[in-house]
Amino acid sequence: MSLVVQKFGGSSVADVEKIKNVARRVVDSKKRIDHVVVVVSALGDTTDELVGLAAQISKLPPEREMDMLLSTGEQVSMALLAMALNELGQDAISMTGQQVEMLTDTGHTKAKIRHVGAERVIQELRKGRVVVVAGFQGVTSEGEITTLGRGGSDTTAVALAAALHADYCEIYTDVDGVFTADPRVVPEAHKLEQVSYTEMLEMAATGARVLQSRSVEYARNYNVPLHVRSSFNVGEGTWVKSEDDIMEKAIVSAVTHDFDEAKVTIVGVPDKPGVAASLFGGLADSNINVDMIIQNVSEQARTDISFTVSQDDIEKVRQVTEEIVSALGAEGSNFDDNIAKISVVGAGMRTHPGIAAGMFKTLAENDINIEMISTSPIKISCVVRRDDGEKAVKALHDHFGL
Amino acid sequence: MSLVVQKFGGSSVADVEKIKNVARRVVDSKKRIDHVVVVVSALGDTTDELVGLAAQISKLPPEREMDMLLSTGEQVSMALLAMALNELGQDAISMTGQQVEMLTDTGHTKAKIRHVGAERVIQELRKGRVVVVAGFQGVTSEGEITTLGRGGSDTTAVALAAALHADYCEIYTDVDGVFTADPRVVPEAHKLEQVSYTEMLEMAATGARVLQSRSVEYARNYNVPLHVRSSFNVGEGTWVKSEDDIMEKAIVSAVTHDFDEAKVTIVGVPDKPGVAASLFGGLADSNINVDMIIQNVSEQARTDISFTVSQDDIEKVRQVTEEIVSALGAEGSNFDDNIAKISVVGAGMRTHPGIAAGMFKTLAENDINIEMISTSPIKISCVVRRDDGEKAVKALHDHFGL
Repeated sequence: MSLVVQKFGGSSVADVEKIKNVARRVVDSKKRIDHVVVVVSALGDTTDELVGLAAQISKLPPEREMDMLLSTGEQVSMALLAMALNELGQDAISMTGQQVEMLTDTGHTKAKIRHVGAERVIQELRKGRVVVVAGFQGVTSEGEITTLGRGGSDTTAVALAAALHADYCEIYTDVDGVFTADPRVVPEAHKLEQVSYTEMLEMAATGARVLQSRSVEYARNYNVPLHVRSSFNVGEGTWVKSEDDIMEKAIVSAVTHDFDEAKVTIVGVPDKPGVAASLFGGLADSNINVDMIIQNVSEQARTDISFTVSQDDIEKVRQVTEEIVSALGAEGSNFDDNIAKISVVGAGMRTHPGIAAGMFKTLAENDINIEMISTSPIKISCVVRRDDGEKAVKALHDHFGL
Repeated sequence: MSLVVQKFGGSSVADVEKIKNVARRVVDSKKRIDHVVVVVSALGDTTDELVGLAAQISKLPPEREMDMLLSTGEQVSMALLAMALNELGQDAISMTGQQVEMLTDTGHTKAKIRHVGAERVIQELRKGRVVVVAGFQGVTSEGEITTLGRGGSDTTAVALAAALHADYCEIYTDVDGVFTADPRVVPEAHKLEQVSYTEMLEMAATGARVLQSRSVEYARNYNVPLHVRSSFNVGEGTWVKSEDDIMEKAIVSAVTHDFDEAKVTIVGVPDKPGVAASLFGGLADSNINVDMIIQNVSEQARTDISFTVSQDDIEKVRQVTEEIVSALGAEGSNFDDNIAKISVVGAGMRTHPGIAAGMFKTLAENDINIEMISTSPIKISCVVRRDDGEKAVKALHDHFGL
């Protein structure tokens, strides 16, 4: 018996006509697949509209009430899709996060999944029904409604696929798959047939937006193959799966970029134990994600520390940093949001030395200055000037023959 | 300890500003009342918009999925109102039909309440919180979401008031209370200080739209005093309560009208047992509510049967009637939607004969022909030509000195 979970995002269910298209697509799948579970996001911009309503009422609404509000979006789209399926003669039933027992912790607006019951999903599938599940939402053991945060519907789909031992999980989106680089920057970029979970995680962390890291991690942990594909055409997309299942490992799979980070430098920090801990502890307490961190060699008992953060967080970072600068007796700080982070990702890198050297040489040949470097076993990231960003991506895509 | 349930309808929470107004009003009440529970409808026209979306997808969507869809409307408004209350410094929490244990039968789109748990409501009230409850929705013992049908939010409010042994239940609406006649027809109509449940039921059944019969019946069964009042001003409205609690019983409390009925006459029906049963059985099977029924005296073994139904049902009625006419061997049928039903309602009527005579005389003096008559111990209804409707209401309002 085959079982597949299909997830359709907000742009795939943006209006009634698109919902009907999705229904036709699901009916088509059901001819080939024994059991189909569909996870949907809210219609188009619904979530943003609801956030806008809340913002008119309160700057800081209670997170529990935000979840009550936002979870309605997916409930609307799942009911409409179930109606559209029934209209096509395909027996279908919609289910809330509560009804599929998507149990989470109590972390409202960013809840983590604890357990997926899915017993009722199985019962309904056995009746020959398509089960349409509200993405993004869960429930605590006390019956409180939660939401899973950004990219939550992908996580819902992967978690259900894991709980149901699905053959694979399809993520339908508005692009054709995962590309060797952003096609808007590199027109010659091509779709990857497959990438490993680890590569996909590095790509997501370095700027590829097609999948959220969290759902990929979940898929890796439960070994759920993902198929990222377009909801607007029927071509194959990109498979994301275990490295063990990928025979031919590319040395470099993709060049990614992130133009939305900012660099912070704290100058003249007294070079003594505990300084980094107090700085990054302070940032963590304010819920700020720090990406790259570099500490320069110390001279005369003082050192410089640089790090990058999301531009969205820059005001919060400025506040925390300035407090810490004065607490540490540092000389000052500066903020630079005119940067680009360019990364080269590939599982084969582990066993092929010289990739980093090739990257640095390519950037040098193109007169691009490197400001920060950070590496993992399968990724090298460089921070360059924002103006050099596109040029760097193109040159590297070309150099590595992608 | 005082406890009051307040219900705000869709027009009272039509937009963000109105929601903020309701929040201020609730905060004000909380200063005088120990425990306040608020029941809300969906924002303005939300329910109609959702029905419209479903209609674009299916002419006959599964009722279970309609309930999934429609129940989101109240979930949005309750979350926004809870946010607005918290913003004013009033601790508040919203709760779904499931969370307040509004247990219903499985009659999707028109479910009946079986039991109200409300334990968690009490817990939250004890913490000093205002509890905001989604009107119109319930849950079956299997965890399926249901809705209560037209006027469902009023019923939610009354059912909660009964379960919580509330002092009374306030129904906030866009009119000032219950009037002696529709002020749009009779400008001199005045607001009633109080009416009995029975009178209110007769008034609702004969065309007064301020309260749905179902919530009044529920209130009568559990003896919950209702206070119908305006959400836009602070004046007293109309109290609806037990007849025993009303000292001065008016002979005639109000003149009501219904311009939305149609009269059906089946001519030349064979006069034998079982004819009425088969006719009205057929209509009931098609879920058509019949209001007045009149059977004329039989002549030559044939009789005429007339009845009134809602104009909304006329197409269904036509279909059922024509089948039955041919099955019964009747001579034919005719349909007339150019009628008005005018009623006089008053609890004192029981002990004061002559009200019917006064009504008929008044209509005669105004040259208004009566086509059908129907009575109950506290009500007399006459069907007249639609063109005579307004004139009849004015004349009767004047005659009975209201």
